[in-house]
Amino acid sequence: MIAILRKNAAPEAVDHLIGWIEKKGLQTHVSHGENEIVIGLVGDTTKIDPFLLESMDIVERVQRVSEPFKKANRKFHPADSSIDCGFGVHIGAGEFQVIAGPCSVEGENLIRIARQVKEAGATMLRGGAYKPRTSPYAYQGMGPAGLDLLCEAREELKMPIVTEIMDPRDIDVFLEKKIDVMQIGARNAQNFPLLKEVGKTKTPVLLKRGMSGTIDELLMAAEYIMSEGNDNVILCERGIRTFETRTRNTFDLNAVPVLHYLSHLPVVADPSHATGYTRYVEPMALAATAAGADGLEIEVHDDPTHAWSDGAQALTPDQFCDLMRRIALIREAIAPEAAAE
Amino acid sequence: MIAILRKNAAPEAVDHLIGWIEKKGLQTHVSHGENEIVIGLVGDTTKIDPFLLESMDIVERVQRVSEPFKKANRKFHPADSSIDCGFGVHIGAGEFQVIAGPCSVEGENLIRIARQVKEAGATMLRGGAYKPRTSPYAYQGMGPAGLDLLCEAREELKMPIVTEIMDPRDIDVFLEKKIDVMQIGARNAQNFPLLKEVGKTKTPVLLKRGMSGTIDELLMAAEYIMSEGNDNVILCERGIRTFETRTRNTFDLNAVPVLHYLSHLPVVADPSHATGYTRYVEPMALAATAAGADGLEIEVHDDPTHAWSDGAQALTPDQFCDLMRRIALIREAIAPEAAAE
Amino acid sequence: MIAILRKNAAPEAVDHLIGWIEKKGLQTHVSHGENEIVIGLVGDTTKIDPFLLESMDIVERVQRVSEPFKKANRKFHPADSSIDCGFGVHIGAGEFQVIAGPCSVEGENLIRIARQVKEAGATMLRGGAYKPRTSPYAYQGMGPAGLDLLCEAREELKMPIVTEIMDPRDIDVFLEKKIDVMQIGARNAQNFPLLKEVGKTKTPVLLKRGMSGTIDELLMAAEYIMSEGNDNVILCERGIRTFETRTRNTFDLNAVPVLHYLSHLPVVADPSHATGYTRYVEPMALAATAAGADGLEIEVHDDPTHAWSDGAQALTPDQFCDLMRRIALIREAIAPEAAAE
Amino acid sequence: MIAILRKNAAPEAVDHLIGWIEKKGLQTHVSHGENEIVIGLVGDTTKIDPFLLESMDIVERVQRVSEPFKKANRKFHPADSSIDCGFGVHIGAGEFQVIAGPCSVEGENLIRIARQVKEAGATMLRGGAYKPRTSPYAYQGMGPAGLDLLCEAREELKMPIVTEIMDPRDIDVFLEKKIDVMQIGARNAQNFPLLKEVGKTKTPVLLKRGMSGTIDELLMAAEYIMSEGNDNVILCERGIRTFETRTRNTFDLNAVPVLHYLSHLPVVADPSHATGYTRYVEPMALAATAAGADGLEIEVHDDPTHAWSDGAQALTPDQFCDLMRRIALIREAIAPEAAAE
Repeated sequence: MIAILRKNAAPEAVDHLIGWIEKKGLQTHVSHGENEIVIGLVGDTTKIDPFLLESMDIVERVQRVSEPFKKANRKFHPADSSIDCGFGVHIGAGEFQVIAGPCSVEGENLIRIARQVKEAGATMLRGGAYKPRTSPYAYQGMGPAGLDLLCEAREELKMPIVTEIMDPRDIDVFLEKKIDVMQIGARNAQNFPLLKEVGKTKTPVLLKRGMSGTIDELLMAAEYIMSEGNDNVILCERGIRTFETRTRNTFDLNAVPVLHYLSHLPVVADPSHATGYTRYVEPMALAATAAGADGLEIEVHDDPTHAWSDGAQALTPDQFCDLMRRIALIREAIAPEAAAE
Repeated sequence: MIAILRKNAAPEAVDHLIGWIEKKGLQTHVSHGENEIVIGLVGDTTKIDPFLLESMDIVERVQRVSEPFKKANRKFHPADSSIDCGFGVHIGAGEFQVIAGPCSVEGENLIRIARQVKEAGATMLRGGAYKPRTSPYAYQGMGPAGLDLLCEAREELKMPIVTEIMDPRDIDVFLEKKIDVMQIGARNAQNFPLLKEVGKTKTPVLLKRGMSGTIDELLMAAEYIMSEGNDNVILCERGIRTFETRTRNTFDLNAVPVLHYLSHLPVVADPSHATGYTRYVEPMALAATAAGADGLEIEVHDDPTHAWSDGAQALTPDQFCDLMRRIALIREAIAPEAAAE
Repeated sequence: MIAILRKNAAPEAVDHLIGWIEKKGLQTHVSHGENEIVIGLVGDTTKIDPFLLESMDIVERVQRVSEPFKKANRKFHPADSSIDCGFGVHIGAGEFQVIAGPCSVEGENLIRIARQVKEAGATMLRGGAYKPRTSPYAYQGMGPAGLDLLCEAREELKMPIVTEIMDPRDIDVFLEKKIDVMQIGARNAQNFPLLKEVGKTKTPVLLKRGMSGTIDELLMAAEYIMSEGNDNVILCERGIRTFETRTRNTFDLNAVPVLHYLSHLPVVADPSHATGYTRYVEPMALAATAAGADGLEIEVHDDPTHAWSDGAQALTPDQFCDLMRRIALIREAIAPEAAAE
Repeated sequence: MIAILRKNAAPEAVDHLIGWIEKKGLQTHVSHGENEIVIGLVGDTTKIDPFLLESMDIVERVQRVSEPFKKANRKFHPADSSIDCGFGVHIGAGEFQVIAGPCSVEGENLIRIARQVKEAGATMLRGGAYKPRTSPYAYQGMGPAGLDLLCEAREELKMPIVTEIMDPRDIDVFLEKKIDVMQIGARNAQNFPLLKEVGKTKTPVLLKRGMSGTIDELLMAAEYIMSEGNDNVILCERGIRTFETRTRNTFDLNAVPVLHYLSHLPVVADPSHATGYTRYVEPMALAATAAGADGLEIEVHDDPTHAWSDGAQALTPDQFCDLMRRIALIREAIAPEAAAE
């Protein structure tokens, strides 16, 4: 951390500040510039609130030097992490997985859709039993009965299931039903009690970026989970909120290589939510794959116009099957061997 | 709701769509434009997912006509609401209140600060016992002991207390201690289980806008609380996230008159979080007052450089006292009688 | 266009409004909803300012139905456009081109870099002779001498050159030197006098999206050029401004399929500016290709640490050569035949 | 400027970098932290491109310490600037002015509106003769004839006129007609040829913030004008683009105290464009005044529903008159004497 002081700061005030910093167990390095004095703070700077430092009269600006995330940081864990999702499905460190299924678990059609996405090549099944909806008057999900349907599909198809948890009070039912991957949605990206609760388990967590979440905040949310002891975190880019209204969100695919650069955790992309329209899902799924994502999460429904939620962005099983074929071609194209030919 | 169809939509497809809409209990009005066909949907359009409609082949675009919020909507409740916060303090419908106190409850200094803000004219006391922090390594709040300190201050000073609830599992302790106003923070603006839980009580809720929350989403969050039976909702503008980095957030003061136009609920503004720097709190508190806010929430600390959180944006009691004097002058200046002179 | 009126609008006021609309030569369709009255406006709605309509007392909200762009609109020109850039290089309608070269024309190294990018497979040469810089104290470009160097490179290598025009007063020198493609930069995306000036020529224009430009505004800027008679417009997505600071811009790759859906014009993507860091250029160039871009614009410099501008995002010729190999593999992977196998 | 290097940077590479920096005439201060090495760069850092530094292998991150604007910087010019706009009207350094008039000059009604705004207390007259419009099919302004009408109104009313210049080729006509204040609109906030051109005159410039312009970019645009020799710059906050759609722009009133803190130049606010709706202009004009703006720019039209542009945000002369009375009360309320009572 670096504190930039005003040029005209009184020497005693500077000494006082240095004393204050050193009392917190940090070392200081002072250098005098033309228009300002710079203090470098060395040591465990998590003890210092940068905004607080900046509030002091003689301080003009404070800048972080090292990232506030540790366990999620590639610097301290250079090798890619691979997360074991069960049924032999690993994600990250070269292994690519496609999570597919309906937005909401709606009933008997789940198993039908599940069979179709598995046949098309999906390796994990998604479906929401608890649904965060902007309107209290919209469909809120089947709840535990939805989890049961997911578990039945898992038993038949032998593939891990991914489903959203919204409330820390539901953790017991998720553990009891041995949900393979718990999803934290964009609206809960900074729901810290919920992050801590899933952090106390060993269940893999698919952690979505918040609507206005920075890349650093996504990594800090992962840090919340990891700091409680659960290292099985999968990051997910699902679009951010900007001024553009032609799509549901703005798909920040830059985040894929940036997250790979900053962190060792696997990165999944969700072109369904990131675009909001079926017609854009295919090109953006291919783009995310080419950008180096470790996996994709895609909404599939066998009758989108009757889906209970998000039908507008669902692929039909046929469209999904075609997409899987194209994804495989992109995966080949970006394989290191392919390029080296 | 209006669905705009492609010009070349086959008549049978149009008829099929009209049938589908009418089966949901809605009426339709069709008009043929030069380049498109427009269907107006009349009735309870909450039954229709606009994104789903838009996913249909013949539909080009769907637009909402009526707001999705009902109980919070001024259209159905033209008079301003006034919320009773206890101890004779009402907010809204012409009554203006200032909520002040430290960011975090830290210990014995709370009562000292409380006395000072009360003397300066604050009518409600704030202080966080549960703190949402971006880093899991930052101070997380005193918890129940913090609530006890707030209650002690309330008993002495006879003023309502406002404090944040982050976890639906804490609702019992908040009710048991008879917290006067429960605050929902920006990060929980779409934490629907939490919104529903506070909605089941009768305790007033100070509901902050999310970092990337639209004005409509803030009203939908209010709707979540109100739809469970709790009409005591106070809206709070606390800054949104934009590209500007010179301030902690961008203070969207336009939201004050817009919320008054759309809703009957009282609107409070928080210049401390919206700016992030002590030096900007005073001008922006005055601006919020002039914009017509029904109240302000302001962070005050008697030793900001030793505050456990957000010291950078806290006023000292002296600064707060001076600000209260200026706020009173602005309140007079915007009074209807003043202008009519 | 649709005007939604208040439910309690007086019948005479509604009649008056209808008269006002019809006097402008438009037809109206009125339908009465439960909570509002809706007027559909049919005809040439470019004559009506939607904000003005919305300002009227009885009007609650106005919504556009048809897009305000005409010549750029795929609806009125269903087939993809192909733009002839000279030297047999066409872009769009299935033809993919890579524009490469240094950010700024700096001198003799231009021809060296040009030879290298051509050998690696680039089909067009870029280089800035006039540079828009945030600081007046930064390097502002070589001006006409830079154009001459570009022309020399063109003569030797027989490939079209692309270079930015910032000032309508420079149009004569651009025409005199027969610049093949004039680039309009992000900062001039709504510089209407400049757009009109290039619109009066027949020279192809590479039109970049503004930093906070919506997709619709990009198409309206194209419309400015086309309405003056120049249909040779190439659209370019180069990243937009958001709250994310880990990259120079947020690369809105969704814009690629959205622009293809809305318009017949070719769409190029610029991963250099959209990321700002050499290390992210390759994955994002591949992503843009997979998303269906008709071309890429990429900065290449043979000595990035000594480049006069934007060295941080330049590829070396070796990196570029490797990238071209990977791009070719992605192009194959997304070819319709490939997927159909 | 500060460069943070990787911890494992080879000593020779570090030495090489230090040599490279010092060859540019800068001094360096090196300090070794736990996880990184930090180099402080002292001297004229405008010679170094921070993005370029960051592109070097051993460099992890680069941070600016001092602001890139000099002439606009309060650090080097502590006293408030006052700009002389002619006819005895000064703005800044305690003097507050209201600029009012129609969006566009439309004809004979200009003089009528001008008389009304002057009578209500406006001290400067605005009106657009050249109009930047998103659509090429919208009204583009009267051009020189509009300037003549403004000049006639000036002669009668003896008040300075403010009008927008969009094209550097128009500078001669603006000078010839002795326009008192040239306005640079939001869309031209980074039109550098235009900024340089007005910088070569001595005419005061009302410089609007770009739609996605940061506060620093606004100050750099001022720097462009000032670096050419024209110090008469008035800054204008007119709303920025965000995700919020209930208003035309998001009024960033925080910018008022931030600009006062960073710069000595006067700051004007434009509540008409910042809100887009007549009904929000009054509260936001009062808010801007309370925030400490040195002036306001407000659109007034005597027949808004027939205005040729932006009628939706215009006040009638009566509404403006009422607003002026309220503004005066706010000005009194924030006067230092008032607060000290």
